[in-house]
Amino acid sequence: MPDSRLATLQAEHIQHLQTAYADILNQQGYDAVLISSGAAPMRYADDQAHHHQGYGHFLHWVGLSDLEHSWLLVEKDGRVRLWLHTPVDFWHAVTPIPAEGWTRLIEVTGQAGIDAPDITYPERLAVIGDPAQISGAPGDANPPSLLAALDSLRVIKTAYEVACIDQASAIAARGHNAARDAFLAGASEFGINLAYQQATGQRETQAPYHSIIGLNQHAGTLHYQHYDLQAPHRPRSLLIDAGVRYRGYCSDITRTTAAPGENRFGALIAGLESLQKRLCDAVAPGVDYIELHQRAHLGLAALLKASELVQDIDDAGMVEKGITRAFFPHGLGHFLGIQVHDVAGKPRPAPEHAPFLRLTHSLKPGMVVTIEPGLYFIPSLLDPLLESTDRRYLNRPLIDDLRGCGGIRIEDNVLVTEAGARNLTRTHLPV
Amino acid sequence: MPDSRLATLQAEHIQHLQTAYADILNQQGYDAVLISSGAAPMRYADDQAHHHQGYGHFLHWVGLSDLEHSWLLVEKDGRVRLWLHTPVDFWHAVTPIPAEGWTRLIEVTGQAGIDAPDITYPERLAVIGDPAQISGAPGDANPPSLLAALDSLRVIKTAYEVACIDQASAIAARGHNAARDAFLAGASEFGINLAYQQATGQRETQAPYHSIIGLNQHAGTLHYQHYDLQAPHRPRSLLIDAGVRYRGYCSDITRTTAAPGENRFGALIAGLESLQKRLCDAVAPGVDYIELHQRAHLGLAALLKASELVQDIDDAGMVEKGITRAFFPHGLGHFLGIQVHDVAGKPRPAPEHAPFLRLTHSLKPGMVVTIEPGLYFIPSLLDPLLESTDRRYLNRPLIDDLRGCGGIRIEDNVLVTEAGARNLTRTHLPV
Repeated sequence: MPDSRLATLQAEHIQHLQTAYADILNQQGYDAVLISSGAAPMRYADDQAHHHQGYGHFLHWVGLSDLEHSWLLVEKDGRVRLWLHTPVDFWHAVTPIPAEGWTRLIEVTGQAGIDAPDITYPERLAVIGDPAQISGAPGDANPPSLLAALDSLRVIKTAYEVACIDQASAIAARGHNAARDAFLAGASEFGINLAYQQATGQRETQAPYHSIIGLNQHAGTLHYQHYDLQAPHRPRSLLIDAGVRYRGYCSDITRTTAAPGENRFGALIAGLESLQKRLCDAVAPGVDYIELHQRAHLGLAALLKASELVQDIDDAGMVEKGITRAFFPHGLGHFLGIQVHDVAGKPRPAPEHAPFLRLTHSLKPGMVVTIEPGLYFIPSLLDPLLESTDRRYLNRPLIDDLRGCGGIRIEDNVLVTEAGARNLTRTHLPV
Repeated sequence: MPDSRLATLQAEHIQHLQTAYADILNQQGYDAVLISSGAAPMRYADDQAHHHQGYGHFLHWVGLSDLEHSWLLVEKDGRVRLWLHTPVDFWHAVTPIPAEGWTRLIEVTGQAGIDAPDITYPERLAVIGDPAQISGAPGDANPPSLLAALDSLRVIKTAYEVACIDQASAIAARGHNAARDAFLAGASEFGINLAYQQATGQRETQAPYHSIIGLNQHAGTLHYQHYDLQAPHRPRSLLIDAGVRYRGYCSDITRTTAAPGENRFGALIAGLESLQKRLCDAVAPGVDYIELHQRAHLGLAALLKASELVQDIDDAGMVEKGITRAFFPHGLGHFLGIQVHDVAGKPRPAPEHAPFLRLTHSLKPGMVVTIEPGLYFIPSLLDPLLESTDRRYLNRPLIDDLRGCGGIRIEDNVLVTEAGARNLTRTHLPV
């Protein structure tokens, strides 16, 4: 997308926020809301800070995830002012303000200090953000009902937000291609992490979530958080779940690759990818995401049977007995936006059969969701099943053979449109 | 150092801590202290965590900087127990316990939960660590006088700790060589960061502090925290300040490199390096670190004159007028250990002429300090001087020529010995 088009979309996005905030402030009985950018907390008992990523409602307006100690004041008449932290010191570089559309709609002032701006505020003021930052600021601190309304506002994405997520997907796609190539060239998890950084131009500390990079059985630890420095003697599989942040907005993509010669595991990946694409195609307005999650389990049951991992039981029975949950214990996906697990995803609690499901909405145009079915060989889930009476349905030799490949997850980022859905990932990463 | 030698040293280190803790607990009126490993805080209003690095007093015993939600109980009779967090879940990998000497001296138990172990504690109990982790634990929380005593215990390093810092220096040296080579090959700051990670085998998120990597004028921002993706059109200089953590212990090394053809800046680096080596050689028991800092200023004055940056004023007069402080505004160095700026460095406040000095001790054998003089072209410090009456001493054309190189810092890690000092960095990184 050309920069001029993005600038136009951004201006429309800001105008949309001005209107929407005015409505919410009126409903909530406030004249204005003061929003803190937040700042990185210090490591406990150390003088070194963690890495900052920005407060969601602040990023909603300005998208600069590394701004700290800055403040935004939104008034119900639509006036928006940003106080940018510009310390007068020789220790740190000041974040430059990019030449983006929002700077024409938001009044920007530099401020040396870190406290809330010393101005006369409208009478009925709310202040939101990390309590560590806003404790000395004027206004009602983090009113729950205001926060809930602002969270809900983030559920339906503007065209600008969709363009940003799409671009975050495009950049991450380069990283996923590089990661696959590095794996096939024999790289370790550590080396694949470097290849991903190199191809995306994103530092590890800027990533919206910790990239999951697992070879072989590590692919079966859902949030595997270590990277081995050495590749395994016999690399069999790579699972990489990694995104980037672009103008504050996240991508969240997972791909699984079989090593050459791993034909059974490769076929299983192909089967799960086929299911994943069908689920992406099923995304549409009015679709109940909990039902889509259930449909994923039925599709997984069919795949487990077709691949002969599970036998002698029909699909519904397999789901009913919880056998599919032992292979696929997490939720089908979640909202995606400024947070990788974006806010306001659960108007209803997750159902008992899917306790980890992070999204329980009926889908509407403008929502962006992930679709990420998985199929894993997780000892702590499969071993009890292999000891139970249900073991008669399981093909133990095949399971034992594939354990060393860890597991599969395939994840795209999907926009709900009026007509159905647009896959924001496959355009950049067809496989 | 062979692993068996390190294991012996580690056992001696633990035995030393057992004795020292017994003394401190007796003095402080406690039977035992419960130490929390800490855990990474969550990013505010997000479900993603920061990266954990471990609580200092916990690392003092076990050195595993990525352990979270684990507990150590030290009793005054010398008994030490570790409860290791071993969650029964399929989300995260459990940190494996290395085959290190301490595991024979400390009783290790796995624990699924994150709360303090449910045991019968000795009567007079203290509990120390991040308040977010210890709030529900038994015992007096973070007694200031006990914390001060434990901080002081960390000032004199054991032979094991020195060996760890030495190894951290050896690993970082590989990174500094790779960084210099990448710079000379035309890499960007971002690319140099990747080269450093590759050569050290350390992820950016594991680094004990944010690596500072500045090309050209960025070298003049003391804690420059961004990395440009593109190398400048004309690369002139690289300043890299980066360390690693090894078994919990940090190195903290800085090198500055001039691009080929930057002869004046190269000569200035050589001059500062010569001064830095003299200061390292001056480290010895009984040396007052504040006086060493002052000696650095006098040496810098001589260098500024020899390089013709400052003229027509004697060294003492230059320091007196604060001219050297405009070129070298930070402190000469600090303690180094489990924290990069290790604890208990300031028994006295920093003097008025050196407000940023982090170390005010008279040196003793077993202390490990950094020696890191600098010489920078910082606009916010030099420009006021160039507008003042002291401008007559300054060689403005030369300053303006070298501004684009940003600045120089050269930093080694130095052990105070009985006889004088041992430079832990130069053995691995001669230049």
